[in-house]
Amino acid sequence: MDNLVRLLAIEEIKQLKGRYFRFMDTRDFDGMASVFCKNAVFDCTEGAGVLPVGGSWKGERGPIVRGRDAIMDWIRDSFRDATSVHHGHCHEITVDSATEAHGVIAMEDHIRGLNRETRLVHGVGHYHERYRLEDGAWRIAETKLTRLFCDWQSQDFRVLTPETT
Amino acid sequence: MDNLVRLLAIEEIKQLKGRYFRFMDTRDFDGMASVFCKNAVFDCTEGAGVLPVGGSWKGERGPIVRGRDAIMDWIRDSFRDATSVHHGHCHEITVDSATEAHGVIAMEDHIRGLNRETRLVHGVGHYHERYRLEDGAWRIAETKLTRLFCDWQSQDFRVLTPETT
Amino acid sequence: MDNLVRLLAIEEIKQLKGRYFRFMDTRDFDGMASVFCKNAVFDCTEGAGVLPVGGSWKGERGPIVRGRDAIMDWIRDSFRDATSVHHGHCHEITVDSATEAHGVIAMEDHIRGLNRETRLVHGVGHYHERYRLEDGAWRIAETKLTRLFCDWQSQDFRVLTPETT
Repeated sequence: MDNLVRLLAIEEIKQLKGRYFRFMDTRDFDGMASVFCKNAVFDCTEGAGVLPVGGSWKGERGPIVRGRDAIMDWIRDSFRDATSVHHGHCHEITVDSATEAHGVIAMEDHIRGLNRETRLVHGVGHYHERYRLEDGAWRIAETKLTRLFCDWQSQDFRVLTPETT
Repeated sequence: MDNLVRLLAIEEIKQLKGRYFRFMDTRDFDGMASVFCKNAVFDCTEGAGVLPVGGSWKGERGPIVRGRDAIMDWIRDSFRDATSVHHGHCHEITVDSATEAHGVIAMEDHIRGLNRETRLVHGVGHYHERYRLEDGAWRIAETKLTRLFCDWQSQDFRVLTPETT
Repeated sequence: MDNLVRLLAIEEIKQLKGRYFRFMDTRDFDGMASVFCKNAVFDCTEGAGVLPVGGSWKGERGPIVRGRDAIMDWIRDSFRDATSVHHGHCHEITVDSATEAHGVIAMEDHIRGLNRETRLVHGVGHYHERYRLEDGAWRIAETKLTRLFCDWQSQDFRVLTPETT
């Protein structure tokens, strides 16, 4: 693959992820829908807990949500009574073809109440992702969140699971 | 615009913002002056408080400071008795022409006492910026800081406002 | 130097540092060895304490570790009873030749117990680094960690020094 084309795709995917975080945190949920492919998959099974070294899983299991519309319904519902801060770090992107790429991006999030003061969750981890050029733009095709730690600072927030939605 | 020229400008503007943060936090205020255009504008009206969802503004209103010299005076005065950590995330840059660009960069800051231990402020938000190629280098022409949260951990620090300067 | 070659080197070095953090935090110490040059030098003398403004150094002095194998032994030993989160921000890279580059990257780390809950250290600072193209890939040739703050939240973790190793 041509090196300039590859660098352009990497920059566009970095900006895609920038928009994902910014739309999420500024509660622009309509804008946020545009970052996902129509058939996107969001795997949050490891997003709400943590695996101690040499121990076993602690925490809730989040859902696997399939399809852009279902993902956006899930995000709107989960954050109806909460706000968020999501920061992404050191995005590692591999371009696999003119229309396919994959990558890992480290993350930190702070979930708070609507007053932006009440602390609910503080976590860090990685998004493991696939990207696809669809309808003229790079979008998130698959994303899976894993955690290095996930501190629940209040019981007032929970990840909506298939059973609770 | 040529794609390689555009990527070069994006990389130079990312490094510009890296220098902004690094010069600020290592208290290299002479270096820091070089990141601003001569007629730069720093809008901090939303930099020292926060807007709850569905509520109204809480916190002080910072100043709008005009011109590189006035900006540097303001920063030196504000941080005379404080140190800082500023981190930038997921810089989204659009190059508008050979000499103009704009962008948004997420941020987190920790303001502390001179001992680097006493916690004064912890906040997160976004810088909304315009950049201009001036005197041979990309520099910040306009920047406005908005907040997702801004926790005041002590009353020992305040943003200097037009009334207090 | 050709601009496209320079941008490619910058992107590869950003991904190199992304792997450094990710291998470290996911405890992939075999993968982590690959990010260092054979004769790499890790200067941690300023990594475990802090210099107050107008004051004198507070904290332990970490070691200077020479050679990839010694660096990996030191890291494995230091983190035997701990986990970590390392985030990198606003990587500023200058490519000096086809095989040499240098840069600064801001950082934040959280060191915790193996349960990923017990807080041991929280710090921020900068890595000052040299990179070299060796055996077909960019790798870290020299790195020195400096701190803006370094909060020890427990005495249960210490940087292994030449005396203690």
